[in-house]
Amino acid sequence: MQDQTSLSSLPRGAALIGQSGGPTAVINQSLVGVIEGLRMGLFASGHIDRILGMRHGVKGLTKGEVVDCTAMHQDKLDNLALTPSAALGSTRDKPDAAYCERVLESCKKLKARYFFYIGGNDSSDTCRIISEMAQSTGYDMRCFHVPKTVDNDLMENDHTPGFPSAARFVAMACMADFMDNISLPGIKINVVMGRHAGFLTGASALARRRDRALDDSVPTASTDGPQLIYCPEVPFDMERFVADVDSIYSVKGRCHIVVSEGICDREGKPIAASLIKNGQVDAHGNVQLSGSGALGDQLGDFLKAKLTPVGGKPPRVRADTFGYVQRCWPDASIIDRIEARRSGRFAATLALQGHISGSVAIVRTGSGSACYQPQGEAYASDYKRVELSAIAAKTRHMPPEFLSGHNNVSRKFIEFCLPLVGELPGFERL
Amino acid sequence: MQDQTSLSSLPRGAALIGQSGGPTAVINQSLVGVIEGLRMGLFASGHIDRILGMRHGVKGLTKGEVVDCTAMHQDKLDNLALTPSAALGSTRDKPDAAYCERVLESCKKLKARYFFYIGGNDSSDTCRIISEMAQSTGYDMRCFHVPKTVDNDLMENDHTPGFPSAARFVAMACMADFMDNISLPGIKINVVMGRHAGFLTGASALARRRDRALDDSVPTASTDGPQLIYCPEVPFDMERFVADVDSIYSVKGRCHIVVSEGICDREGKPIAASLIKNGQVDAHGNVQLSGSGALGDQLGDFLKAKLTPVGGKPPRVRADTFGYVQRCWPDASIIDRIEARRSGRFAATLALQGHISGSVAIVRTGSGSACYQPQGEAYASDYKRVELSAIAAKTRHMPPEFLSGHNNVSRKFIEFCLPLVGELPGFERL
Repeated sequence: MQDQTSLSSLPRGAALIGQSGGPTAVINQSLVGVIEGLRMGLFASGHIDRILGMRHGVKGLTKGEVVDCTAMHQDKLDNLALTPSAALGSTRDKPDAAYCERVLESCKKLKARYFFYIGGNDSSDTCRIISEMAQSTGYDMRCFHVPKTVDNDLMENDHTPGFPSAARFVAMACMADFMDNISLPGIKINVVMGRHAGFLTGASALARRRDRALDDSVPTASTDGPQLIYCPEVPFDMERFVADVDSIYSVKGRCHIVVSEGICDREGKPIAASLIKNGQVDAHGNVQLSGSGALGDQLGDFLKAKLTPVGGKPPRVRADTFGYVQRCWPDASIIDRIEARRSGRFAATLALQGHISGSVAIVRTGSGSACYQPQGEAYASDYKRVELSAIAAKTRHMPPEFLSGHNNVSRKFIEFCLPLVGELPGFERL
Repeated sequence: MQDQTSLSSLPRGAALIGQSGGPTAVINQSLVGVIEGLRMGLFASGHIDRILGMRHGVKGLTKGEVVDCTAMHQDKLDNLALTPSAALGSTRDKPDAAYCERVLESCKKLKARYFFYIGGNDSSDTCRIISEMAQSTGYDMRCFHVPKTVDNDLMENDHTPGFPSAARFVAMACMADFMDNISLPGIKINVVMGRHAGFLTGASALARRRDRALDDSVPTASTDGPQLIYCPEVPFDMERFVADVDSIYSVKGRCHIVVSEGICDREGKPIAASLIKNGQVDAHGNVQLSGSGALGDQLGDFLKAKLTPVGGKPPRVRADTFGYVQRCWPDASIIDRIEARRSGRFAATLALQGHISGSVAIVRTGSGSACYQPQGEAYASDYKRVELSAIAAKTRHMPPEFLSGHNNVSRKFIEFCLPLVGELPGFERL
């Protein structure tokens, strides 16, 4: 089979769309984007007769559970797009060969010739396996992956749909929680999502006025919280952590700390994994990191035990784990909404162009420096096709130039992140 | 000393304003309201020469730490009002007699004749003690309390500034988290603030479409989450809890639960208190309930151990504790912003009217049924003066008519709560 076929040789049948992995605030934008793109393209050209949504991804598909979206009213689609979480239902199933055969069997039964899967790196791997199985068995079904993940850990992408909105939540929550911390001082720990990558944890730096303004004349990072940011890319050392906190707390009587749920020890073992009682493991072998306050509580307990009391009193220590609300909070970033929608449409376009398979990747074409420099460049992005194998089951980490020391992010990271999250409130201080 | 004096006999000196207790999204509105009210009233009439903010309430005051707000630009005040958390800094100090003498000493040193304290029931008690001490020692200082608490547990108030915004956060977070729960099913526990009162926990019911619409034709509460709501007013029984969850989980394969951090066993002991390792106690004797995920994690562990596996697999259980972000999230309720500001102004008016002391209470004068009935009544509120002793150190609980059974709130509570939180997003479902 060739890499691309002409319009005349495109197969005719149904299109399937699924959502997979952890939901986001904008994954329904991508769903609606695919539907819109197909309606304007392959449905209009007569290659598609039905647009079907899989209930809970491949899991529901194998049971024949689909929703007909072919004629869904645009009003409903527009409202759906603004609704967080995966409207079709999601799954964390990891199909093995036998599972994939059942998926393919279901596709054939539905006469599906186009398969769209919106998800992260595990989901793109599912898409790749199904695509290869279809090709190797001679069933012409075109398979496309649409990127989605708050972790921002997909290769080839400048950033991924879902990340800007989650980053916006983390930045706003840290802005507000820092105000809380200076109001009732003590040590505050915020635990942020991110299994292997520190992008979302790093977004907490936008809570600092200096970093938000990218202006060194604004008070330094050590004044505005969070003063300490721990990403999973840097091995986490408990003793060094205590020394870091002590150096700030002993001077200010307060300290605002942001920690990724995915921080690991020197052996690469996630610290949270050993703390969550009866922690659960999904089909992809991912151990449970979210949906528990254990990591934050443990770090807090450790600080209470180890820190030198100030004025004879043990430090006031509190830990909040932001939890699932950071991935589905309704106030999504505007840029994220637009890009998630367009990523979905672009996948439909790839099918119309005759591609056999592929994943959509976001390319930044305008830096967005206008949001922190008067003469700066407007933010702009575009979309490219990449091979499924370039994304599937691979993880992108924070590049070294996005990190600063072992407990901070760099100016480069702020320049990367700030244009994505939308306008942040400007708090006043006395 | 009489209860009220005429304008001509009002004392002349400085005004002090403090913020105390847990911050909220609108406590700075009240601060600005007092400043504005004083400028328009007693400052204009020449009775006040300076308006001073106490740094961290009475704690900073005793060290002479004050900020001069007399001539603060209105632009700065307007921005400050929109900033969450306590801009002056807060405190949880509980002044004993010796402490109060030092406070009064500091007031005299600053020639303060008007004392405004924005806070909850502990803070109003501080205000009462200082007021009584001033009166008993013959120092003419007028003391006023401005209500503030996300817990909504002040007597005499229809509701308290801070509550509508926190309720808005809880409702939106539960709406979003329920979408997450139907997308990736399992058992989800959300832990909500509220030491003794279940108002904020109850606000999670607004996440349900039926309750939001107050329309019984919309799918029932057991369809939309949260299906189970546990307030501190009802003794919490672990075995009954497991049976409740089982009855929903065994049918739907999912369950969305909201639990107050303040739930107590039959002996009235807070369940969280025994779970938080090295839990901390404030000066008012309040044991730590927030800033830890221990309660949610413990309930989750209990469910994992006790629930019948569905399809041979133990249930997927996750627990998120909303934490401090629910009291300081910047997207405050519009009504809350307005009422917090006006509460502050009203306190200043009470001083101008010659009252010796008092607390401000919000009275609902229009039910707000217009937000769920086409021919309904517009929401409206007004302010009244109540004695400090009517508020001080007293706790208001959810009245029985706001509760429904042991794990739900009533329609009456929804009618009470819905008009306060502002417009909620309307999510679409497939």
